[in-house]
Amino acid sequence: MPSADRPGADDTPPARPCPEADVGLLAPSRAGSAVADATGDAGYLRALLDAEAALTRAQAAVGLAPAAAGAAVTAAAARTRPDPHGLALRARAAGNPVVPLVADLTAAVAAHDPVAAAHVHRGATSQDILDTATMLVCARALDLLLPDLARTADALRRTAERHRDTPMAGRTLTQHAVPTTFGLKAAGWRSLVLDAHARLAAVRSSLPAQLGGAAGTLAAFHAYAEAAAAAAPAAPDLGPRLLAAYAAETGLAEPALPWHTLRTPVADLAGALAFTAGALGKLAADVLSLARTETGELAEGSGGGSSAMPHKANPVRGTLLAAAARQVPALTAVLYGSLAAEDERPAGAWHAEWQPLRDALRLVGGAARDAAELTADLRVDPRRMRHNLDATGGLVVTERLVAALTALTGRGEARRIVDAAARRTAQDGTPLHDALRAELDESRSAALPEDRLRQLLDPTTYTGSAGALVDRALARTPHDPQEPG
Amino acid sequence: MPSADRPGADDTPPARPCPEADVGLLAPSRAGSAVADATGDAGYLRALLDAEAALTRAQAAVGLAPAAAGAAVTAAAARTRPDPHGLALRARAAGNPVVPLVADLTAAVAAHDPVAAAHVHRGATSQDILDTATMLVCARALDLLLPDLARTADALRRTAERHRDTPMAGRTLTQHAVPTTFGLKAAGWRSLVLDAHARLAAVRSSLPAQLGGAAGTLAAFHAYAEAAAAAAPAAPDLGPRLLAAYAAETGLAEPALPWHTLRTPVADLAGALAFTAGALGKLAADVLSLARTETGELAEGSGGGSSAMPHKANPVRGTLLAAAARQVPALTAVLYGSLAAEDERPAGAWHAEWQPLRDALRLVGGAARDAAELTADLRVDPRRMRHNLDATGGLVVTERLVAALTALTGRGEARRIVDAAARRTAQDGTPLHDALRAELDESRSAALPEDRLRQLLDPTTYTGSAGALVDRALARTPHDPQEPG
Amino acid sequence: MPSADRPGADDTPPARPCPEADVGLLAPSRAGSAVADATGDAGYLRALLDAEAALTRAQAAVGLAPAAAGAAVTAAAARTRPDPHGLALRARAAGNPVVPLVADLTAAVAAHDPVAAAHVHRGATSQDILDTATMLVCARALDLLLPDLARTADALRRTAERHRDTPMAGRTLTQHAVPTTFGLKAAGWRSLVLDAHARLAAVRSSLPAQLGGAAGTLAAFHAYAEAAAAAAPAAPDLGPRLLAAYAAETGLAEPALPWHTLRTPVADLAGALAFTAGALGKLAADVLSLARTETGELAEGSGGGSSAMPHKANPVRGTLLAAAARQVPALTAVLYGSLAAEDERPAGAWHAEWQPLRDALRLVGGAARDAAELTADLRVDPRRMRHNLDATGGLVVTERLVAALTALTGRGEARRIVDAAARRTAQDGTPLHDALRAELDESRSAALPEDRLRQLLDPTTYTGSAGALVDRALARTPHDPQEPG
Amino acid sequence: MPSADRPGADDTPPARPCPEADVGLLAPSRAGSAVADATGDAGYLRALLDAEAALTRAQAAVGLAPAAAGAAVTAAAARTRPDPHGLALRARAAGNPVVPLVADLTAAVAAHDPVAAAHVHRGATSQDILDTATMLVCARALDLLLPDLARTADALRRTAERHRDTPMAGRTLTQHAVPTTFGLKAAGWRSLVLDAHARLAAVRSSLPAQLGGAAGTLAAFHAYAEAAAAAAPAAPDLGPRLLAAYAAETGLAEPALPWHTLRTPVADLAGALAFTAGALGKLAADVLSLARTETGELAEGSGGGSSAMPHKANPVRGTLLAAAARQVPALTAVLYGSLAAEDERPAGAWHAEWQPLRDALRLVGGAARDAAELTADLRVDPRRMRHNLDATGGLVVTERLVAALTALTGRGEARRIVDAAARRTAQDGTPLHDALRAELDESRSAALPEDRLRQLLDPTTYTGSAGALVDRALARTPHDPQEPG
Repeated sequence: MPSADRPGADDTPPARPCPEADVGLLAPSRAGSAVADATGDAGYLRALLDAEAALTRAQAAVGLAPAAAGAAVTAAAARTRPDPHGLALRARAAGNPVVPLVADLTAAVAAHDPVAAAHVHRGATSQDILDTATMLVCARALDLLLPDLARTADALRRTAERHRDTPMAGRTLTQHAVPTTFGLKAAGWRSLVLDAHARLAAVRSSLPAQLGGAAGTLAAFHAYAEAAAAAAPAAPDLGPRLLAAYAAETGLAEPALPWHTLRTPVADLAGALAFTAGALGKLAADVLSLARTETGELAEGSGGGSSAMPHKANPVRGTLLAAAARQVPALTAVLYGSLAAEDERPAGAWHAEWQPLRDALRLVGGAARDAAELTADLRVDPRRMRHNLDATGGLVVTERLVAALTALTGRGEARRIVDAAARRTAQDGTPLHDALRAELDESRSAALPEDRLRQLLDPTTYTGSAGALVDRALARTPHDPQEPG
Repeated sequence: MPSADRPGADDTPPARPCPEADVGLLAPSRAGSAVADATGDAGYLRALLDAEAALTRAQAAVGLAPAAAGAAVTAAAARTRPDPHGLALRARAAGNPVVPLVADLTAAVAAHDPVAAAHVHRGATSQDILDTATMLVCARALDLLLPDLARTADALRRTAERHRDTPMAGRTLTQHAVPTTFGLKAAGWRSLVLDAHARLAAVRSSLPAQLGGAAGTLAAFHAYAEAAAAAAPAAPDLGPRLLAAYAAETGLAEPALPWHTLRTPVADLAGALAFTAGALGKLAADVLSLARTETGELAEGSGGGSSAMPHKANPVRGTLLAAAARQVPALTAVLYGSLAAEDERPAGAWHAEWQPLRDALRLVGGAARDAAELTADLRVDPRRMRHNLDATGGLVVTERLVAALTALTGRGEARRIVDAAARRTAQDGTPLHDALRAELDESRSAALPEDRLRQLLDPTTYTGSAGALVDRALARTPHDPQEPG
Repeated sequence: MPSADRPGADDTPPARPCPEADVGLLAPSRAGSAVADATGDAGYLRALLDAEAALTRAQAAVGLAPAAAGAAVTAAAARTRPDPHGLALRARAAGNPVVPLVADLTAAVAAHDPVAAAHVHRGATSQDILDTATMLVCARALDLLLPDLARTADALRRTAERHRDTPMAGRTLTQHAVPTTFGLKAAGWRSLVLDAHARLAAVRSSLPAQLGGAAGTLAAFHAYAEAAAAAAPAAPDLGPRLLAAYAAETGLAEPALPWHTLRTPVADLAGALAFTAGALGKLAADVLSLARTETGELAEGSGGGSSAMPHKANPVRGTLLAAAARQVPALTAVLYGSLAAEDERPAGAWHAEWQPLRDALRLVGGAARDAAELTADLRVDPRRMRHNLDATGGLVVTERLVAALTALTGRGEARRIVDAAARRTAQDGTPLHDALRAELDESRSAALPEDRLRQLLDPTTYTGSAGALVDRALARTPHDPQEPG
Repeated sequence: MPSADRPGADDTPPARPCPEADVGLLAPSRAGSAVADATGDAGYLRALLDAEAALTRAQAAVGLAPAAAGAAVTAAAARTRPDPHGLALRARAAGNPVVPLVADLTAAVAAHDPVAAAHVHRGATSQDILDTATMLVCARALDLLLPDLARTADALRRTAERHRDTPMAGRTLTQHAVPTTFGLKAAGWRSLVLDAHARLAAVRSSLPAQLGGAAGTLAAFHAYAEAAAAAAPAAPDLGPRLLAAYAAETGLAEPALPWHTLRTPVADLAGALAFTAGALGKLAADVLSLARTETGELAEGSGGGSSAMPHKANPVRGTLLAAAARQVPALTAVLYGSLAAEDERPAGAWHAEWQPLRDALRLVGGAARDAAELTADLRVDPRRMRHNLDATGGLVVTERLVAALTALTGRGEARRIVDAAARRTAQDGTPLHDALRAELDESRSAALPEDRLRQLLDPTTYTGSAGALVDRALARTPHDPQEPG
């Protein structure tokens, strides 16, 4: 969607593009996605202002500010359109963008309501606002991202149902092993997508507001309450009550403690994002393997073209998913690393979270959209699957032959016979049927009637419990976090 | 514990040490820990044999093997003491240790019961056994590790109770900010430890058995059932029934699907381990900061000595915890990366899990023990905390002074006055009390009686809701995964 | 620098801000830096157009295109100002931005010179252009970044010279160990900065152009040459000659082979960037430790303020450096991971390089600027260093006392005496001098005259070879990649 | 090699296996390799003893110890066979194994030469010994590993020569693109292997000894010299002279400064190891892709068997290489992260290096051996390559057809014609020859004689500069760090 057409942009004054802007040129996966919009600097700025406005309203709710101040700050925050790049430059002084933003917001409030201006950000620390804004951005991004995962799971359910009994080669360590079904593969993909959905949804519902003041004791709120009450001490639970009010105003969860250096919310989200990238990366790994020219069992509905080769139809969505799966775990490692944060606010560990968390959200947001597009239009070629199943001349059923012969000859001899036949098939292409008959002595050959041998050699009937497994996997719904037992 | 004293080692034939053995020389954190024992090659080997024995018993339970075979394989597995290094060398051929181990176990069974020997590993793939063994090792390691976390949380509860109201400097970006309490800090550490315990305990209870056969369809079990039943097809749900029986025999959870390339269990554990390392890393970061010679508020009960300097008492446990927190996230990133695994068994992604998962377990196992030791014997120096609180000559309460003066002068003027006084204190050491009086004009000075000013300047009374927050944090128990709202 | 003031921006048509733009709001380290500008989407777009123009000129140079085509494409590329976000959206189809850019550039050329238009991008693949543009961006970013490292090294040279003999506590595992000098510390920082400079400069000079055509054989250029020559085959070395011409036109190095999946240049740069982030992170770790309120030996010249606490002067540059050092190694791990890239162009590994490489450049570019600012205005407090040196009551020289007493008493007894005295000093604050005298029997006490004991107890004279080490470290120049032997 | 047969093991007293031992059960890549032996705990212990002995000899060389002490410590170090696990347990107290080892070594020396015993470890700090030992272990491991890389490069040279002109499909984003040659692919692999060799060899030759004493000033050596000289101060360059002597005794390079927290040597090695793992990972990625059952162009000479499927020949070496390439970059990230180390010895960053560096060495050591084995016995199937080249019915040459037709029709029309023909071929399998003729109008068809069209459609002649590129890539030798220009 061209930026000029976006709703709400109409009254924005035009600006020259910022040379250092990253608008997605190197990120085709996320470009133009709703999550990319929600996590851009403009979205963060909106969330920062929302966090400030909610803070004044929460203080009003517990009597620390006049109700009018809450309204005035909220209105000014809605009116204010600070320039992200200008703020970024001013953020260098204190090392975070909240300090200059508070100055701007205070001025904007003061222009209409000087009394209310005194209540902007009062008692809070920059981290209260930046952490709360981050949680708001994460919440908004997840609300946009989870439906794409649900759509993906739904498409995969349909695929798994349709191909419940479509036989294809099962492959291990790059080689044909025994048959499986495409339905089982798709049901497995869906299972991972539901796991990802469940993990992200759980994190979504627990994202907390942040409020602790300078060192996590909420002491400044006590000080202002005390000053307002002519030095009478504030109630000891003022902090917790304010925290509850703030959570209510932001729509976020209430934390048990300020979490300036208790980074469970960030770490949990980081883990769920890496999981999701990896889950979609499994889907991509299979699509990419099965789309290879020689295999050709799957294709993306609208494969990407090539600048040089007219005939190419590249699995572009799968490629972008694979690229995301390579990047998110590293960002998650940075975020887990930032758990080890000294003091009441660390010098570096916190700052090291900001971009990696946003980048992980953007990568997974883009990946969820790519996965939804890929699975909505995945081209499956059952004939090619069937054809490839014969690529080894019957070797995909040697395991079954050993089982059947074991009943006739004992295990050692069964294995010897099948090994010898398989070797011959692999070497000179003799059909496995003939190679087997040649290895069996007369009496054993007689004990294995031709129709039984033909049945044993048919790979399409050697899919074990695949159907039953598909059925029970599909019985799980997106709202069911537990896998069926 | 010296290795010779370990139970069960008595009947082990002596062996020359293997030159490539890693017995913990470079890993003082884990050396000699119960988790290190449980996760060593001997422990893995035990788990691999347990997985094989359980498989035959499970087949017996669903009628795929005679009951005697289950008993025979179980007995042989208990008797067998394969050499881990010899197996490691033989594992090079197929790329995993199950292939040579099956050969050894089969021979051991055959020596007593040739019929049962045919049922060893029958129908399974190497990954079934290695994954199941890995889950057994993880379960055993977690069962040893979780109590250390519980002990740590318990020690921290006592510390937080004892120091609920012990004032100390709150520090942000390395500088004194406003006061806090050591109780709040300890309650925060405990909160992270409980978060870690909850996450690991949840994973512990969901660790699944693995059984899918060559490509995840359990087809070989059908083939053997069919062969035994004179070619009558097996029930379509044979696989799921066998999976349930296998889970029961191993004591692990039953998965909805074989998870050869649906690696949720590994990823979930990886995330919980990185979380735990980071949570303990936060504790360590604070201990290390507060133990610095100039700060001296905390010390480890039994600090490590130095080879060169007789006077040193190093925070060794904190150091080892910090080292673990730097390593586990990277291992976790590898494990998340292995979610993206192609086909029914990938060529590399699976193999890349083995050592990182074990290493993460060992690091976290060692860290949990170190944390339990550290917190059991942490020396807290409240006098030094009180002393350091004065290090800035009163600047830790400037926030409170601004609040109090704002009621007298309005916010802008209050900030100007306090800034000027603080600057003077910082520059020439004038007590903040005097600097403030000098900045206040007569009327304002009069409005701030001396006892009120002294009260405002007392850092020990500026701890806001710290006490209330400690109380509610301590209300949470280890068995309560949810934080109190 | 506000974006509107930037050179070259004057004739740019104004544009509405793109909601998904990242202009540095969460990245105060890089915001407004020259490297940030050079690596933004606009800079990449410029480099992509430069790469295309150079390609046509190179073809002209070897006779594959008319000279006028080179000029026409160069002129059109200079004129063209494509919208990065629009291209990003169109890049979704093929998965990279080169495909739509070639369309735009071709149209722009065709508007003036339809014949030349046929030569745009002819024979090349998207990766040729994107890789070459990336190398151009890297070269430009490094040319901006290296001087900041040189400035940092120069400031540190001055600091080390000035404080060559300024004694301070050497600290190990958070505890005072023995004295060192601030000069030695600063010389060590400089040594790391020079190491970083040397590694980045070496990579800078080897950044190669990329040209291989669809699969790295440069076959399409042969085809066009052949077609132009009425099917006469092209010379077998046409490719290498064109590669040389392309390198010359871009100003980049000539690679021995097209490196579509031989990613040495990216990996080498990734390693040098992680090294640089870590080298500056060491500087930051020390500044942050020594700036702690209780230590106070260093301060940043213009410490960041706090939104809540007027008195705070935070080490903001050190904090941002520490944050960068936590992030770059993870991005580098992604880039090393992308070495393992299948086929002639991989489905994911290549795409996973784009943003991490840019992000690493931006982080290190910002860090180099922060380091230059920090070291240009670092406040050193030698009096505080001297004061802190006494914090242990003399324990920092126990190692020396053991040495001196060993000559009198033998090693075991010397250690016993010093241990006992040190214990007493540590426990009750008895000056070490008195504690020692109390431990020494009469004859030994007599053998240690008072002035010799005072000399032994003076920490400022116990700095060993610090001065000599500083001198030889400073003899190394930025242009000298080798450390003096 | 079975452990019992190893040289030097004969006089080792037998020991019970340590339950926590890791002897390679989960590491088939490294098991039994020379690098695994060199980097095991026994090898580290040997290196630690070597470092101690060299230290006393170096002190003797500069007059700080009697010559006999150097000999006595060297002899005792050679005799001593401490138990690694016992030391590991005792290392918990101080957090490193040097402290207990020094006690053991001192006792061993004292038993023969009480005077010499006083010189064991004198003046040094644990880190001097552990870092020096680590460099010795790294040097020994690299000396074992580099020949495997050289062997690999040599095998690849032969492969590239043999297949210089063997045509095969070039593949991009999983799809056939245009032809290439297997020679070019093998030459590219070799180029990466030589890059790895060059990087590791450069690091090998610069691995430095470590000696700084407690805080890097070498002050204790001054103190002992002073005490021996009746309080006359030591020469200021005593430290540097001793450092030079120590480097000479260890055979390592002399550092300009003690590098306790200047970790360039570790970081450089870490980068080179990640590079090597990735370089071999590229080789593996291609082998795994091309060995897939449907492609079958490559196979490992001795593919691994399967426990369940007799017919399987898995690319085991490629699998293990791929697994290593996934792990090493994460370990390297930890090591780059440890550059940011506070003070004169950090509390955690240093300790976090030990196992990751060893693990990276072991992984790369195993990978180098696997690569040498794989390339020594790689089975190449040129017929299958030729066969697969036809898989798209001629579409691999569409790029060439566009070039040829452009000369006839102009670019736009050429692309239209080829697109239409390619679409038809892709859809219904019409040979591209026929589809093209059908698209060409009469006059154009006439302008493209049948033999010219046949020539254009022959993929084996569309390999551009592949041969010339192979020739120049092979001109580079392992001793030539620079690629030919």
